[in-house]
Order: sequence, then C-alpha cells, then structure tokens
Amino acid sequence: MSSTFGTLFRVTTFGESHCRAVGAVVDGCPARLELAEDDIQPQLDRRRPGQSRLTTDRRETDRVVILSGVENGRTLGSPIALYVANRDQRPGDYGHLSRIPRPSHADYSYQMKYGVRAASGGGRSSARETIGRVAAGAIAEKFLQQAYGVEIVAWVSAVGEIDADDVDRAGLTRGEVDKSAVRCPDPAAGARMMETILAVREARDSVGGVVSCVCRHVPVGWGEPVFDKLEAKMAQAMLSIPATKGFEIGSGFGGTRLYGSQHNDTFEKRARGLGARTNRSGGVLGGISSGEAVFFRVAFKPPATIGRPQQTVDFSGRPVTLEAKGRHDPCVVPRAVPIVEGMAALVLADLALRQQRMEIL
Amino acid sequence: MSSTFGTLFRVTTFGESHCRAVGAVVDGCPARLELAEDDIQPQLDRRRPGQSRLTTDRRETDRVVILSGVENGRTLGSPIALYVANRDQRPGDYGHLSRIPRPSHADYSYQMKYGVRAASGGGRSSARETIGRVAAGAIAEKFLQQAYGVEIVAWVSAVGEIDADDVDRAGLTRGEVDKSAVRCPDPAAGARMMETILAVREARDSVGGVVSCVCRHVPVGWGEPVFDKLEAKMAQAMLSIPATKGFEIGSGFGGTRLYGSQHNDTFEKRARGLGARTNRSGGVLGGISSGEAVFFRVAFKPPATIGRPQQTVDFSGRPVTLEAKGRHDPCVVPRAVPIVEGMAALVLADLALRQQRMEIL
Amino acid sequence: MSSTFGTLFRVTTFGESHCRAVGAVVDGCPARLELAEDDIQPQLDRRRPGQSRLTTDRRETDRVVILSGVENGRTLGSPIALYVANRDQRPGDYGHLSRIPRPSHADYSYQMKYGVRAASGGGRSSARETIGRVAAGAIAEKFLQQAYGVEIVAWVSAVGEIDADDVDRAGLTRGEVDKSAVRCPDPAAGARMMETILAVREARDSVGGVVSCVCRHVPVGWGEPVFDKLEAKMAQAMLSIPATKGFEIGSGFGGTRLYGSQHNDTFEKRARGLGARTNRSGGVLGGISSGEAVFFRVAFKPPATIGRPQQTVDFSGRPVTLEAKGRHDPCVVPRAVPIVEGMAALVLADLALRQQRMEIL
Amino acid sequence: MSSTFGTLFRVTTFGESHCRAVGAVVDGCPARLELAEDDIQPQLDRRRPGQSRLTTDRRETDRVVILSGVENGRTLGSPIALYVANRDQRPGDYGHLSRIPRPSHADYSYQMKYGVRAASGGGRSSARETIGRVAAGAIAEKFLQQAYGVEIVAWVSAVGEIDADDVDRAGLTRGEVDKSAVRCPDPAAGARMMETILAVREARDSVGGVVSCVCRHVPVGWGEPVFDKLEAKMAQAMLSIPATKGFEIGSGFGGTRLYGSQHNDTFEKRARGLGARTNRSGGVLGGISSGEAVFFRVAFKPPATIGRPQQTVDFSGRPVTLEAKGRHDPCVVPRAVPIVEGMAALVLADLALRQQRMEIL
Repeated sequence: MSSTFGTLFRVTTFGESHCRAVGAVVDGCPARLELAEDDIQPQLDRRRPGQSRLTTDRRETDRVVILSGVENGRTLGSPIALYVANRDQRPGDYGHLSRIPRPSHADYSYQMKYGVRAASGGGRSSARETIGRVAAGAIAEKFLQQAYGVEIVAWVSAVGEIDADDVDRAGLTRGEVDKSAVRCPDPAAGARMMETILAVREARDSVGGVVSCVCRHVPVGWGEPVFDKLEAKMAQAMLSIPATKGFEIGSGFGGTRLYGSQHNDTFEKRARGLGARTNRSGGVLGGISSGEAVFFRVAFKPPATIGRPQQTVDFSGRPVTLEAKGRHDPCVVPRAVPIVEGMAALVLADLALRQQRMEIL
Repeated sequence: MSSTFGTLFRVTTFGESHCRAVGAVVDGCPARLELAEDDIQPQLDRRRPGQSRLTTDRRETDRVVILSGVENGRTLGSPIALYVANRDQRPGDYGHLSRIPRPSHADYSYQMKYGVRAASGGGRSSARETIGRVAAGAIAEKFLQQAYGVEIVAWVSAVGEIDADDVDRAGLTRGEVDKSAVRCPDPAAGARMMETILAVREARDSVGGVVSCVCRHVPVGWGEPVFDKLEAKMAQAMLSIPATKGFEIGSGFGGTRLYGSQHNDTFEKRARGLGARTNRSGGVLGGISSGEAVFFRVAFKPPATIGRPQQTVDFSGRPVTLEAKGRHDPCVVPRAVPIVEGMAALVLADLALRQQRMEIL
Repeated sequence: MSSTFGTLFRVTTFGESHCRAVGAVVDGCPARLELAEDDIQPQLDRRRPGQSRLTTDRRETDRVVILSGVENGRTLGSPIALYVANRDQRPGDYGHLSRIPRPSHADYSYQMKYGVRAASGGGRSSARETIGRVAAGAIAEKFLQQAYGVEIVAWVSAVGEIDADDVDRAGLTRGEVDKSAVRCPDPAAGARMMETILAVREARDSVGGVVSCVCRHVPVGWGEPVFDKLEAKMAQAMLSIPATKGFEIGSGFGGTRLYGSQHNDTFEKRARGLGARTNRSGGVLGGISSGEAVFFRVAFKPPATIGRPQQTVDFSGRPVTLEAKGRHDPCVVPRAVPIVEGMAALVLADLALRQQRMEIL
Repeated sequence: MSSTFGTLFRVTTFGESHCRAVGAVVDGCPARLELAEDDIQPQLDRRRPGQSRLTTDRRETDRVVILSGVENGRTLGSPIALYVANRDQRPGDYGHLSRIPRPSHADYSYQMKYGVRAASGGGRSSARETIGRVAAGAIAEKFLQQAYGVEIVAWVSAVGEIDADDVDRAGLTRGEVDKSAVRCPDPAAGARMMETILAVREARDSVGGVVSCVCRHVPVGWGEPVFDKLEAKMAQAMLSIPATKGFEIGSGFGGTRLYGSQHNDTFEKRARGLGARTNRSGGVLGGISSGEAVFFRVAFKPPATIGRPQQTVDFSGRPVTLEAKGRHDPCVVPRAVPIVEGMAALVLADLALRQQRMEIL
C-alpha cells in the first residue's frame, strides 16, 4: 500500500470505513501558518454524507481534531496529525456481501492482492478514506491562499447525459457552487441533474458525472519536468480518487481535434511578464505553470454499489443474485467536489515548495 | 527538475535536444534478465523521426549503447546506463526564435522557472527527451514479457476529427499496427488520417490525435492504493509525455454518462479465479489490476510549432509575427505510439516489483 | 521536516512533547500479520520514563491504541495508525526557559530554521518523539520475527568511563538485559554504571553512554547497494535518534587499526551455503547482509539538560545563568535500548521487503 | 539496487569496474551555476589510482565528460549526465577468483542476492563505483561554494595505529592536505603513515585508517528532523562508501565518556545571531546545522583484497588457499579523501535545497 503523497508537502492518510478513526499526517507544511480546526472542518462538511437528499443518509459528524504540529494557532513546521473518529458504524449492513465480490468494486482485487480484506464496507477503498485527503487538502489550501493568493474552485459540470453550460472560470466562488445541492453553478442544468439523481436513486441505480476545477493565481514556474510535471502530478492525484476514470487539462480530448493554428495560445504583454490571449493549454506549458489559470476535468463513473439485482458469482464462482442494501450515494460528484479541490491543493502546495528559483546564483 | 520515475524499477532520463547525448539510467531491474541492445533498438527506431513522409526529416540514427549493468548478455541487478548520441544537431534552425517564446511551447515557462533556457531547440521539453523513456521502457517491457507474459500494444485511434473503428484489443499486434505509417490498425481510417496529416503539413499547420493502448496478461494484484493506484501512476506517466492533455482508462469520460447497472462488470468463473464479463473498468478495481486487460487512451494536442504565421509578442512584450522554420512533425501520434508503450511498461514493471504477496505469513 | 522513514515498510511519526498525542502511521506492513496492541505495549513500557530510580519520574502510562489497519487480530495491508495520548503535561516546568536557548539542545536551531518553536519542552526534538518509532518498530519486529525468525537485542555496553565486558551476542535475551535497571547484561559493570548514574543525578549533571545491538538470523541478501546499503540505512536510523553522536558496525573504529590479514573473515562451509569463521564485518558484505549476525554500537552523548548552572546567553545575546528545573534523565542509554531495537527493526523490515530475488527469470 | 541519493539535489550513479563507462546523473542542480569539466576533474584526479607509490598502479586517466545539462558554461536546471570511460580493463587479473568468494569482499553476498555477479573485479562493489559520486560531489561542492561559501576539507587522521595530531579545522586547506601523498596534514604522523603503508604493501597485506572532514560556513538551519537530520544523512552517506565501518560527529564515541557539564556547548553573542563557545556538537543541534563548523570522522577497514595467502573455501564449500594477484591498494584512506568530501557535499547540497524558511507567511 502506498498512502503517502508529495515530496516536500507530504500527506499520509490512514483509516478504513469501520475502524476507530480515519485521518492523515501532513508533514512538511511550512511553519508559522495560522491554522485551526475551523480551517479544515468546512471542507469536511462539504464532503460528508447526509448533506442533502442527493447523498447517503449515513449520519456522521466527521469532526476533525488536530493532534499535533500546531501551537498557539500557528503551525510549528512539524507533522500535523489529523484525527476523525468513525462514529456511525453499521457493519451489519455489509455483512451479507462478504462472500460475494461486488461487481466493479474493489473486493475481488483487494482479496487477491492482500489475501485478506476488511470484513465490512469497502475497507481502504471506501469513500471514508478520502476524509484524510480532504482534511490535509484544506491545510494545503490555507497555505496556498496565505502565501500566494491561490484560489481553487471545483464544481459539477456533468451528471449522466446532462452537461452544464460553461461557467465563468475567472470569477466562480464556492458560495455560488454550493447554491445548488448538486454543486452545479448552472441553475438550469443543476435542476435537471438533481432530477436525474433522484430518479436514479428511486430506480436503485446510480449514475456518473464530471467534476471541473479551476486553480487561479497560480504563479508561473510550478511543476517539475519531466516526470513530475504539474499536469502529470495532477492526473495522478485525480486518478487516485475512488471511482475516477479520466482526467483532462485545458483543451483535453476535445483539443485533439483541432489544428495547431486553432489551438495555440499566443502571448500578449501583461503588467508583469507575458500572458496568453487564450488558455487552451490549461495553465501549463511544458509541465510548468504559465501564470494562467490551471483548469481540468475529472470523470467519475457511476457508483458500483446499486440496489438493482445483479447476476454475478461469489468468490468460489457460484452464480448469485446480488442486491445491495445499506446506504449508498446514487451519484458521487456532488460530494467529490471538495475531494477534487483538496487533491488539487496538495499537488500545488508540493510543487510550490519544490520550485527553487535560486536568485543566489 | 524531477527526472526519475518509479519506486523499485526506476528510470532517470537525461539530455536536451542539442547536447552531446541523451539517455537514461535504469536502476532496480531484476538481475539475470537476458538483455542486449537489440532488445531496445526496435522501439527507438519506431520513435525516431524520418521514418515516413508523415514525420520530420531530421535524420538521426539514434543508436543505443548499453554502458553498464549487463554482462554476458544478462543483467547484473546493477544500474543499466543507456546512451544515445545526439548526431543531427542544427542549432541554427532554431536560433532566430531565441527572443520569442513560441506560443503553447515551453520557452516562456522554462525561462521564468529556471532563469535560463537552452539556446536552441526545446531543451528538456524537446521530443528528444523521450528517447531515454523509450529505451528504458523497452527494458521494462522485456522484463514484463519474460517474467509474466505481459503484452503491451498501442496504436493511433484518432487524428483530428478522424476516429478509428474499434480494434480487436485481445489480439492486436505491433506488426498490425505498423502496417500503416500512421500506426492506425483500421485501414480506412488510417488512410484518411494520412491524408489529413499530409494536408496539414502542406498548410504548414499541425493536428492533434489520440493514442490508445492495451496491456494484456497483467496479473491480478498490481497497483498500490491509495496514491499509487495503477490508473493513478499510469495517468502520471502519460501526462508526463510532451503534448499530452488527457488520459482515460476503461469507460473513461464516456462512462460518466452511464448508469451503474449499465456500467458494472459482473463476475464469472474462470479456470483460475474469477473474471469480468465486461471490462468497462479497464482492468483495474480499486486501483489494483483485476486480471482483465488494462486499456486506456491518451490525448495529444496539435504540435505547437507550426510554419503558419502567428501574431504574438517577444520576451520583452513587443508584437512580432512568428513563422517557424526547421523540421517539425505536423502530428505526433504515430511517433508517440512507442513512447506510450514505454511509459506503460515502466509503470507496470514498477508495480510488479512493488506487489508483495507475503505467502510467508 | 522529514518524518517518514522507509521505502516499502514506511513509518511516519508525529507529535511534540506537549500536544494532544504522539504516534505513527505504519504503511506497507504486509497483510495477514497477527497484531494486537499487546505486541507493541511492552517496548513502550521499556522506553517510558519512571521505570526506575535511574530515569525521570514523569508518570506517563503511554498506552498505545491501534486506530486502523488491523481487523480480527490481523493486519489488512493498509496503514496502521498508532495513537498514544500525551497525559502528563506540565508546561510550566519549561516556561522560564523560553527566552534562553538551552546549550547543546535544539532550541536555537529550531528557532532559526522554523522561525518558531514549541513554547515548552523540546517540541519535536523531545524524547517523546521516539514513542512513534518504538511503537512502529515493534510492528516491524513482529513481522521480522514471524516471517524470518529475526531476533533483535540491544543493551547498554558503556556508561561514561565504565565499559561492559563482552556479552554473548549469540544467546543474549531481552530478559537478561532487563535484569538490571541500567540494561547492562554484565552484572559487575551494570552495578558500577548504576552508581555512576545516581551520582551524576545527585550532582545535577548527566553522563553519556553506548548502546550495542545484535540482529540474529538476518537472511543473506538484505541491503540495497550503493546508497541504501544495510549499514548505511542503519547508520541513518541510529543517527536520527536524539542525542546520538556515532555509529559503528562490526569492527568499527577499532578495526581501522588492524591489518587485512587480521581483519578478513574467511569462509567455511555451512549446512546451507557458506558462513564466516569470524565476523569482523558485522554481518554485512558490500552493503548486503551475509547471513552472519548484524551487530553495531551507537554513541549517546550526555543529556544536554542539566541542573547545574551554566553560563550562557539568551536569544538576544545577553549573558544569563541557566539552571534547568523539571524532570530530566541523567543518562538516556537505559531507555534508549528499545529505541535502538525499534529503529533496527524498521531498517531491516524495509530491506526485507525490498529484497527481490527474481526466481521467475 | 538503489543507486540514487538525495531528495531535491539527487545523484544517480552507474557503472561496474569493467563495463564501458562509469558515471552519474545529477538531477535537481539549480540552474545558472557556472560549470565546466574543469570543475570536476581535479577531484577525480585526487581519487584515481596511480597517483603515488601508495596506491595501485592501474593507469586510468578517468577523464570526465559532461553529456547534458550545461550550455554556454552554465547549468540549465536539467539533469547533468557525467561520463567516464573505463579504459584500463584487465579482466584476466581477476578471472581465477571467480569460483572463490573473496573473504570480507562482496562476492558472496552479491551472488546470493542477485543470483549472478560481475565475472571480474568487484562489479558494483568496486572502488570504481565511487567515480560517479566524486564527480557529482564536485558539482554539489561548486554549488555550495558559489551560493553559500561552504568549504569542505577532508584529510587522513589515522592509518593503522598511527594517529595524526589535531589539525587546525578552522583553516586547513586542500593544498595543505595534498602536501603529503598520504593526505595527512600532520607531517610527522604523515611520514610514519607512509612508512606503514609501504611496509604493509611489501608484506602483501593491507591496513585501515580514518578520514576526518570539516564543512565550514554551513548556514544555520540545514537538516530535516526527524529522519533526515543532518548527521543522519551524513552517516548514511559515509557508510555507503565502500569499506567504511564507522561514523562519528562532533565528540563522537569519546563524548559518551563525558558529563553534560563538560560536554555542553554554551552560547555567546556573535555579530549575527548566537554562536557556541565550544563545538562538541559538531555543528548540529537536534539534527539541524547550528552555524558552527560541521565535522566528523569515518572509519575505513583494511582493504579485503590482500596478496597474503588466506585459507578459505570456494562457492561449493571446498577448502582453498587464496592469494590475490592484480593491483590493489594496501590502504584506501588517501584516495578516500575526495570521496568523503564528495559525499559530504551531496548531503549538504540536498539539505540546502530542502531548507525552506517561508518568509512569505
């Protein structure tokens, strides 16, 4: 298992769905950053289940406690351990699944890899694993905001067949995103997304979607060619989130259909340095931030756990009909928004610390 | 700069477009693997320019020399240094660009990050940097093939607006891919792609495309949750290739439009363990290989360097008209095929070594 | 800060002397290892203060709680989070020191590096930081013992000018070590060490010492040349323990005075493979375990915090007389024994997992 | 194998004793550093054999070639590949050893670990492996000198039973060290060391020794607690050098015999910040540089390869008498001086880049 991410700003997450606690250790956060639990809790609240009719009704308060690394409201430069108790454990809901690997879930691969798996819930592949990421990401975000003025905003840009209209990437705020329970800032699309999700829940089915994200005011120069290019680490970070199947930055797959003369972002003079007249590059040039906004999209598949009967086999290969009980999100993208923001912040905070312009030479 | 990839099977690449040599050091390759330069050269030949009318006519032989780590035709377990001389250097072709950052190229971001940049060519952002990856990837592939029977085949599945029909992922060979100069195994689509590329070259423009890849016979159990999931490391690897803008695995972005009941891959009994009746997951479950074929797609933007005039500014902000001279590929995807294969092999070889099923406990 | 150690078997520690908790996350421990808190607590009990007249009388129970990674008494392969509450906090004891950097302590360097430091106690340089190491080390040791039969035993071999006689490295047990409060298995030397420590305490002074350690039944082949040689990682591990100033393996500094003809360990036939007739190499050849016992010695300086008055200056440079109050160990080596054992186990567990004899090729 | 050292300033070495070339790739060296082969060659010349009567008479010119990463005499920020051809190959000298693992050499452990070993010479455990370290270290040293004024000087402080008198650590130069072929700045001791080495050579034996090293003008604040403390990384670096058996910093093992009141370094006011009146700490406090000179000692065992007959066994366990032929150093410490300096520079350069005082917060 590999539960650490980052080279200088590093997070290590821990915890399964039904153990005592989940959380993270953030190591390498610069000293003297103002930090309190209140800086972290809001993103956990946006991630937690039970926020609206659209999500599972597991009632977890998910209160974060800072165990170390902060004194008198400031970071010490030492590891910041984050602790969130697992309160709402109902292992029984999952018990009957134990002999049946859920289709498109991690039961089979975990069992084959480790020779054992958590008896209930998804173990480490559970959505609860993301709590540590979101908490750590909130610290990274505070650092980025304080030190560089970086702003990170994600939103739901598609649910099933419904696409949101283009949003104003330059001005969009989290407040605007959170106006709709589905976290889509396009009200008309958001309303239809909500209908879709409720209909899917009714049908005991699930549906996929897309989360878009913009990172504004990223200074020029972040990203470490050739293997730790900004887009490469961002892609790793996003594809490490459960249920993701794709990542694209800037023009993405759509850009493959263009000519260079259509796609290129020509330069113009800015108050400070140069800027790009267009931004099909998505804020990166050669793996390094260009000073333009970084933006990207992340594909989330429909959740694997559905109430509809599925014809499959158990671990021994015997045919069975599986109908999931328990509490499950019919669509993960509304709750995935703070996870995408958190992982983006972790990527950028690490690259910020790795950027070494040696003025001394 | 971060030029090392991998945890146990590690590659470090080096070299700019116009220095003495490019290459790589492969550390952590298991001992006693049969290996000779002939195992590496074919993929370099598939990557090099001047193979066909579709690519730049820089004439580079790109002969690889193994400097260390191999004795009597077998690896010693020690670092394998790979050396490819830079022969066809024509710095003059690039010299006039030096005061103008090429649009959508890395000149601007490298200059701002490092305070200096290679005087000619793309420096480290040049396509020549990929030689080290391809050479190292060929070693990884030999290891995967010998030890596990893994087969990796990539092909061009789109150029501009032209999409190839679905190919037979189960049986496709490199020989079939190489039948067409554009490396598209769908002959009709391939012919149209070729026309497009030649027309684009004529117009002194460029065009994007998509490379698809399948990895067959990957054993169940590879991938290290949560941050080094197979798809996460694959996404990092692919987005670290120059000119890439997107990655999707299995159902990808298209899968976001499906219901869970449509998307889930139910299990069936196999001669050994279980298999999936469908493979929308793309061979991964919870970040771990499932035993099914791993397949994914990579988006390549149109090359930034075009002969058509572009209105842009120089480093000081003064408006200029830029018309690239020199030798440039109008479309990178045919030559990107062995690069994608090489990076896929590097990801899998590392995850293979990291997979530790401790039968001893 | 860099609080993670290991490549595959990785520990991340957290916690200062007076925050809510200290602990560690162990990632990469193989699945299906039998593990309970009772496997960890004994080493914490050997490490904790207040065990005897020789150590500080801070009364901390230091009970470890496993937060994650273990289910039904077996590891899951997922991160094992370890939590030890900080109970006995008396920040007032240290408050008066805050304007004075303690001589040979970390106050000055932490303040200069981080621009802030923990207001009380030694912060991250405190001995409490080692709790996470000892707890994690106990897990590593359980793994090594179960999977390979490795035995690790450390003891006090010197206090001040008093050296223990050579011990029977082949048979020494922890029980024998713990017979004396000073953890010296040579009873005569141990008695004199105890007198020395009590006299030093009476004089409000402190004294240094040496901890020796043997690791038996280490299989041949562990260690990763050239930079992660067994002795190199062991040296790093030992010099990362607070208050250490030296490390030697096998013949050590004494061996520099010998001729090769005296020093070389010639081979002899064994039931399985070859063995060495002598073991001046200390169980390593070329950075790789040889199959012989690994043994080494670690130098600990006298604790910096002493009650005797010291003429020094405060942070602003004004002369002051400093007399430490509070509770301090006059000699750390008895309590350092389980720390040395724990770090040795962490080194060996990581190298065990990194050893990849590819029988498949 | 693990041939990469460093987190931000990283070196990867390659090469065996009798392959085509040895060398290194330095990644992460800051851009715009003035650098030429002439900055590197002098340390290689000090390392190479055949410098004096004291060393083996293998005649290798060991000319370094910079393959990449430097343009117009300045680093680009990209990987610097360093190449040194292996010219003087006489595999025949070693051929007869192939069935006999040399006592206290790495033949046995390499064979057992990798299932294969270089047919001649020591392979990767050969002293030639250190060429890459020395070359890379010279670059690190140039960076440290240019950016911070750091000075690193090592010397031979003991050969066998002969100890040098204390040297003036504050002023010692490499020129003074190189006045004697044995690299001992104490002329009387140096003369006796030389006699010893010549006598040992005559006796076809070998002898050990100690290299001391001082690093001056290291700024306060370098070192990353808790696992990458300055002394911990330095210990790893030194124990990764072939033939080393011990490391001590500051007061070292001798300091364990002192009382705290004797050992503590009290502070005094300096023009800038505070200084220590004495420096038993060896320039580190809590794993972080204190602003005082960093100094340490490294123990080298007598070389394992000796001409005197040794009674040992071959790989199959049959008794044999072994008499080494070929060219071998009777004492490695004179040539180890630049290796110790190089590794020290690599440690410090990496810690320099990792030190992040965030004035921005």
